[in-house]
Amino acid sequence: MSTALEPFDAVDVIHAKRDGRAVAENELRWLVDAYTRGYVSDAQMAAFAMAVLLNGMSRDEIRVLTDAMIDSGERLSFEGLGRPTVDKHSTGGVGDKITLPLAPLVASFGVAVPQLSGRGLGHTGGTLDKLESIPGWRAALSNDEMLAQLREIGAVICAAGSGLAPADKKLYALRDVTGTVEAIPLIASSIMSKKIAEGTSALVLDVKFGSGAFMREQERARELARTMVALGSDSGVATTALLTDMSTPLGLAIGNANEVRESVEVLSGGGPADVVELTVALAREMLALAGQPDADVAAALSDGRAMDVWRAMIRAQDGDPGAALPAPRETHTVTADRDGVVTRMEALPFGVAAWRLGAGRARAEDRIVHAAGIDLHVKPGDAVTAGQPVFTLLADDPTRFDRALGALEGAWDIGDAAPARTPLVLERITA
Amino acid sequence: MSTALEPFDAVDVIHAKRDGRAVAENELRWLVDAYTRGYVSDAQMAAFAMAVLLNGMSRDEIRVLTDAMIDSGERLSFEGLGRPTVDKHSTGGVGDKITLPLAPLVASFGVAVPQLSGRGLGHTGGTLDKLESIPGWRAALSNDEMLAQLREIGAVICAAGSGLAPADKKLYALRDVTGTVEAIPLIASSIMSKKIAEGTSALVLDVKFGSGAFMREQERARELARTMVALGSDSGVATTALLTDMSTPLGLAIGNANEVRESVEVLSGGGPADVVELTVALAREMLALAGQPDADVAAALSDGRAMDVWRAMIRAQDGDPGAALPAPRETHTVTADRDGVVTRMEALPFGVAAWRLGAGRARAEDRIVHAAGIDLHVKPGDAVTAGQPVFTLLADDPTRFDRALGALEGAWDIGDAAPARTPLVLERITA
Repeated sequence: MSTALEPFDAVDVIHAKRDGRAVAENELRWLVDAYTRGYVSDAQMAAFAMAVLLNGMSRDEIRVLTDAMIDSGERLSFEGLGRPTVDKHSTGGVGDKITLPLAPLVASFGVAVPQLSGRGLGHTGGTLDKLESIPGWRAALSNDEMLAQLREIGAVICAAGSGLAPADKKLYALRDVTGTVEAIPLIASSIMSKKIAEGTSALVLDVKFGSGAFMREQERARELARTMVALGSDSGVATTALLTDMSTPLGLAIGNANEVRESVEVLSGGGPADVVELTVALAREMLALAGQPDADVAAALSDGRAMDVWRAMIRAQDGDPGAALPAPRETHTVTADRDGVVTRMEALPFGVAAWRLGAGRARAEDRIVHAAGIDLHVKPGDAVTAGQPVFTLLADDPTRFDRALGALEGAWDIGDAAPARTPLVLERITA
Repeated sequence: MSTALEPFDAVDVIHAKRDGRAVAENELRWLVDAYTRGYVSDAQMAAFAMAVLLNGMSRDEIRVLTDAMIDSGERLSFEGLGRPTVDKHSTGGVGDKITLPLAPLVASFGVAVPQLSGRGLGHTGGTLDKLESIPGWRAALSNDEMLAQLREIGAVICAAGSGLAPADKKLYALRDVTGTVEAIPLIASSIMSKKIAEGTSALVLDVKFGSGAFMREQERARELARTMVALGSDSGVATTALLTDMSTPLGLAIGNANEVRESVEVLSGGGPADVVELTVALAREMLALAGQPDADVAAALSDGRAMDVWRAMIRAQDGDPGAALPAPRETHTVTADRDGVVTRMEALPFGVAAWRLGAGRARAEDRIVHAAGIDLHVKPGDAVTAGQPVFTLLADDPTRFDRALGALEGAWDIGDAAPARTPLVLERITA
């Protein structure tokens, strides 16, 4: 911890960003490294993060920051696989189970799909939490197991090892408690450092906006998408982003076990129209980046090819794809109090309600209730008659219903006229 | 440390300042209190400080912040003294010994002058360090000793007790390492919280600008002065500020023992013109606030009244005003290499050189060499002939001379024409 050996002073680097000057590449690399080592303190990094949030970062600075976070840890390589790898990242939303049908669907075309995923915190669910509803399934794989599964089956969804971008893990935890989460350069470098370190050759981003998304406004989501696409391009990862609407929950299931069930429906050629639409749209982008722009994606869902990969993928991680999924001990169904049309179902309160029912965590150490969540029976635009079920709350403990219903007050409406239909995929952003 | 008992969340308060919204009074008071208690972390406070630096604070917010810092500690009161109290604060400069002659001078008019002072760090000297050159003199007084000395003698210069505004102490140390020192609302509240907690009824501020000052630009010094004058006014402390030039060292002595010697010259009716000018200007402002706008300040210097108070003040704190001051073991004199006029002596490098000679500290735990420093023999505007002494370096260790001379390279010039004279006191700012 001797200052004599350090080439820079954290205060000088903070001053540069604070005063709107460019931060030199070697200063920024040093800052990330010294922070990871603990020489630069949390307080210094928090001041720097706030200066970034308020003053922004140039495209060059974002590239260097991302690269420095990659360099803080190990780097995987899929070059030995002998086939293209394409990854997908979603900024997270309510009912967003798309990774589950998408990975086996794309892999069914001979493309390797490594999905190093996380767990949920707050109202957005985590892919690993959903898959852990499947009896026996395990999220933790060694690098060798992951590579073997990619080679043999083509699709893997597993926990990201702690060796990838440790600087990002430390900075992410700091941003969370210092009011610096919403800085686009920091969000972009956090997401992309892990994806680039993972070693994928191409990446499709699902950048969501709306009440259930991290970004509320389309404008900000577009800025984030553009930043990440530029970063991918600067780092040699072909990247495409779709801007998608997250004002209404995706599909009819919000939770864990029920989202797996819905994913299996999609893999069986059925499932809710919006989940199918987004799965197909993202699969087409991924396959285009893998050199198969004309792949017949819908056919792989209807003819069972994607389902075959799903079964193999779950089995390879010790899960039983045929086993019964956990069922809730208690249910509470809310019905329509009038005839009409569902005009609105706000994503955020439905996500919060599912969370309160036990489907999500408030703290990282909380346990998930896999059977908990919400099943929607109708979606905005659907006609209902008085007394018809609108949604069903699922929980293990009936005392949770009141807290969930509190979150849902004013979150949905039945009106006289169907709402205007808005597209699910609004923009496509490429380098 | 239970969150359940905390009325606010630090992240919400940071978000408000970050997003340019007003921070509510109770939120800001809670933030300061929770930070002092250690519930709000250094990282959270650093992010908040950076948001304040970049987004500013309203006059109301600055008042609340200052008040919260005062409330974090004890509050003194001089009401029982039966005479007005006036304090002075300088933002610090090179050769700034003004407090030494000023306090006894103003006290000689029957006004109580409590000067709770600090130590130097970096290139600006500390009043207590200078006075500790006097054999026997002690800086630490109890509150009772301080009050008794104010009652009997009228002037006291002593160490500020650790009980005043502890929140400020903690925040000041944090700002120093997080690049958030230069935020005017934080500088103003830091200075004023201690002065208001000290219980003075009036305050004169010497806000310096120029290369040797904390504020380089007059514009920024003016903003700081206006902020502090408003804060004094909002807190019931009559406050006047003078904006003074600190591009050239004050007087001919830079150090500790030599600055005491120069102060005694001023108290004897002599001394360098600039030191006399600033001492008299500040004394007039202080006496005006104490209800004596027409006091004959110069007379009290020439007739020995101020000197009598000085001697009593030094003696009351166990110092011997007649004792010899420490002398340097080694000296090194720099002479003029040509005939001409001194056109420039830059305050900052002279301050840095004195510091390197041992007159100041790099770290709070460093020891001061009281005899170390620089004696100037001429000032800008003075004519010199080749070979004439320009300044003498004073140290206990001759190896320090090279390092000091390194700092002084290019710091002064001899030219053909005298430089334009600039006034020492440039602006006067009142509520």
